[in-house]
Amino acid sequence: MMENYLEFAKKLARDAGEIMQKYFNQAVATHYKGDKTIVTAADEEINQMVIDRVQEKYPEHGVFGEEQSFGQDKITLWVCDPVDGTAMFARGIPTAVFSIALVEDGVPKIGVVYDPFMDKMWYASVGGGAFCDDKPVYVNETLLADNSATVNFDTSARYMPKGDASHVAQKIVQYADERVYLVSIGSIIHAGCLVAEGKFVAEITGVTKGKNMDVAALKVIVEEAGGRVTDIFGNEQRYDRDINGAIISNAVVFDELMRVGKGEK
Amino acid sequence: MMENYLEFAKKLARDAGEIMQKYFNQAVATHYKGDKTIVTAADEEINQMVIDRVQEKYPEHGVFGEEQSFGQDKITLWVCDPVDGTAMFARGIPTAVFSIALVEDGVPKIGVVYDPFMDKMWYASVGGGAFCDDKPVYVNETLLADNSATVNFDTSARYMPKGDASHVAQKIVQYADERVYLVSIGSIIHAGCLVAEGKFVAEITGVTKGKNMDVAALKVIVEEAGGRVTDIFGNEQRYDRDINGAIISNAVVFDELMRVGKGEK
Repeated sequence: MMENYLEFAKKLARDAGEIMQKYFNQAVATHYKGDKTIVTAADEEINQMVIDRVQEKYPEHGVFGEEQSFGQDKITLWVCDPVDGTAMFARGIPTAVFSIALVEDGVPKIGVVYDPFMDKMWYASVGGGAFCDDKPVYVNETLLADNSATVNFDTSARYMPKGDASHVAQKIVQYADERVYLVSIGSIIHAGCLVAEGKFVAEITGVTKGKNMDVAALKVIVEEAGGRVTDIFGNEQRYDRDINGAIISNAVVFDELMRVGKGEK
Repeated sequence: MMENYLEFAKKLARDAGEIMQKYFNQAVATHYKGDKTIVTAADEEINQMVIDRVQEKYPEHGVFGEEQSFGQDKITLWVCDPVDGTAMFARGIPTAVFSIALVEDGVPKIGVVYDPFMDKMWYASVGGGAFCDDKPVYVNETLLADNSATVNFDTSARYMPKGDASHVAQKIVQYADERVYLVSIGSIIHAGCLVAEGKFVAEITGVTKGKNMDVAALKVIVEEAGGRVTDIFGNEQRYDRDINGAIISNAVVFDELMRVGKGEK
């Protein structure tokens, strides 16, 4: 059954990628400067496709999408971010991705992420391992003290009510900034996949409201690759509702980052 | 004469882009995880090509390259960063660019930047305007208070001796972080070209030692697009030696950023 779901999600991801490409080329061609029309159109078209496909194939499931949802109170949900990294997308920078997760009673079981620009697909199912383009991927064992360590962070904390999550995220980011090469490529999900591939050691985000779709697929992909995905305090969390930020990391830096967030280090 | 130099530099940039593509595909194929072999090979091959071409065509000029230089004491220098954004390049993220500037007595006269992944070329000569793919480009008039403002910053300050430049850069970045969408796409030069195109409002960097090649081409491209490029204190600087960081911005946010750096705001 999981295999069928995975195939369904991968097909969706490729079709979403085609829609992303279409609008991305428009964004590039129009020398788009900041209004959100094109990105919104891409987001909505993909979100609608996801709803249509799920209704057709799995009418007993719901869809929890960034733009639109359907049957959000059901036990089994397809949690989808149609275009993650919209600010980059709108500016013609090819780092945005499509993401979808199958979440059962709050727990992600399958995750699929697609980067249409590099034609890379990351996917995983619980217990089945994580893959990129059908090859197994694993997190690295790089420590923060290592010269090659790269940490990605998400700077949208300021858009949210100043809650605990964004405050803790900022503490961790500051700590990382003093030790490693810090980047922010504009897509939480893309950066998380690079953690799964062993290219980044961690991704830190303080996102909360309506942002479960930013982390749901990563929960499966990164953990199946040997990493850890928790909320910003180091706790497990549900992915069918608002989240408390996230630490997405390889296994060896998790404790250090979590303790920094708690002020214990 | 400037027209000939520009054609020479544009041809170099396209050929450099081919070399970048070749090594990038190797980096992606080998699931490269952090050692710098492939990037260094790309850097060196491109740097050597630049030296060979300049020696052949303009033997009276020197080359100031990130990897290797030749006749660095000459009045007229080709200042080149073979691959800017190497950390992203090595991790298979397509945001790196090639950059070259013609610098006369410390003053950039021509700038050419090439992104081989999106096949985008930005170029300018003093008094001749700035272009992307042969269409004129202009900075935006977006203020930091505007919702669509995006600022890029460069986080490598910690690699340098803690001088004034990195300290001031950090002050400005913190100010921006409280107001706008802040990203760090991993290439100062690419981000600067997005300022020229009106997609970012500013790029802030604290780089100093051996980093004149990070800003030399941008000095021409961004200013010909109507923006401002100064050192981190708001002053003009030479581009044939170490620099004092840089504020690369549209015209309307420059005063605000500079004053913030000086602690006047």
